Amino acid sequence: MHFTTEQRLDDGVLEREFTLGEIPGVLWTPASASASAPAPLILMGHPGGLDRMRPRLAGRARRCMADGFAAATIELPGGGDRPRSAAAEQARADLQAAVRAGGPVDDEIVDRLVLPLVDKAVPEWQATMDALLALPEIDGPVGFSGGVTAIGVRLAVVEPRIKAAVLFAGSFVPRALFEEARQVTIPLHVLLQWDDEGNDRQAALDLFDAFGSKEKTLHANMGGHTGVPQFAGDSAAAFFIRHLS
Amino acid sequence: MHFTTEQRLDDGVLEREFTLGEIPGVLWTPASASASAPAPLILMGHPGGLDRMRPRLAGRARRCMADGFAAATIELPGGGDRPRSAAAEQARADLQAAVRAGGPVDDEIVDRLVLPLVDKAVPEWQATMDALLALPEIDGPVGFSGGVTAIGVRLAVVEPRIKAAVLFAGSFVPRALFEEARQVTIPLHVLLQWDDEGNDRQAALDLFDAFGSKEKTLHANMGGHTGVPQFAGDSAAAFFIRHLS
Repeated sequence: MHFTTEQRLDDGVLEREFTLGEIPGVLWTPASASASAPAPLILMGHPGGLDRMRPRLAGRARRCMADGFAAATIELPGGGDRPRSAAAEQARADLQAAVRAGGPVDDEIVDRLVLPLVDKAVPEWQATMDALLALPEIDGPVGFSGGVTAIGVRLAVVEPRIKAAVLFAGSFVPRALFEEARQVTIPLHVLLQWDDEGNDRQAALDLFDAFGSKEKTLHANMGGHTGVPQFAGDSAAAFFIRHLS
Repeated sequence: MHFTTEQRLDDGVLEREFTLGEIPGVLWTPASASASAPAPLILMGHPGGLDRMRPRLAGRARRCMADGFAAATIELPGGGDRPRSAAAEQARADLQAAVRAGGPVDDEIVDRLVLPLVDKAVPEWQATMDALLALPEIDGPVGFSGGVTAIGVRLAVVEPRIKAAVLFAGSFVPRALFEEARQVTIPLHVLLQWDDEGNDRQAALDLFDAFGSKEKTLHANMGGHTGVPQFAGDSAAAFFIRHLS
């Protein structure tokens, strides 16, 4: 892991861009974090395109800092300037065509797009955890927040360092991941935008139902795909404070 | 309205039992409430049987006090020692028999039980508001919290003094109330116990979907019928603070 930029923000937050091999990422640590008082870590997932997502991720990170957590994110395989695979690009084009046609999207297309992404991304998040947890100012427990939902599901199953997760109940989760969801046992806080026309609400509810966790909470709100209300963020923050602080 | 008992609790909360005509009720006011600083009011609904529900209602009231609200509840028509109607008792017996038989409960039985209850209870809650808001230490806005869900729906439609409601998404809501739900426009915070086998989950989700409110939030949790987790109470309290404080 190599830090490429470093910036101390107004409120003492340290914002550092890094690369881990070919993977770009950003780490935010609160002013309070030190070797003698290391901060728990929240990994912030996103749909890919780190530069485009950066303002929203920075906002989420500031919220984590306020609660004493460090926060980090990395670019997805095939996202931003990372090498694209022809198969993934074809699958994405097929999915977009199906969505434009207004019809349901074949499971086969979802599997072709998402399963390889999960297979590639999960080890990258794990390598990122290895590197971040080696820093003296960061320590476990670790939380995962955000999308891609399928990545969060797989991480919750295979990565014991992750103790709690906030997931967006989105569409395009391969059926195979529903089976993995039954193996999830960590506390979950699941967000659903109820009136998001681009989202399959029933699939989201089915996924929530599938999770094996004894503590799981679904928060459904209005406001469309990107209109998660401020108070929903407050509840998600309270969830992490309960489980990671 | 006649106060029949008065007790000052450890933390300064004033607990008073009252009767409004034949209807018994309880009012809790925080130590901070006075004529110069009147408290907003939360009406606490319940399924009937005030004595039996009293410990849980007192707990909910203490939470309201902590946030600076007054809280009040009244007995339901036919609940506790209030006169029972033969028709309501028959409808209740028919419903219990249908539930014991494990089958779905006919809409006709639900209508026969719940619609007359709503018709009688809603004016009683309104009369209670009239009396409580005439006290110098209480002022609007008013919130409604709890069940019977159908009573909360009707109150939210017909009573403009109610500015926000926390509803339990329960079963046995008459179809006619789904139509009324579309007319609800106040902010709603809806609680659903996801694994409550006695509750029709799909009906609860349909009811949430029906509400016309621009701000509505569904919080689904595990823990069975009476196992609403502590953190769900925290979120509901934050909702009232946002809308009534």
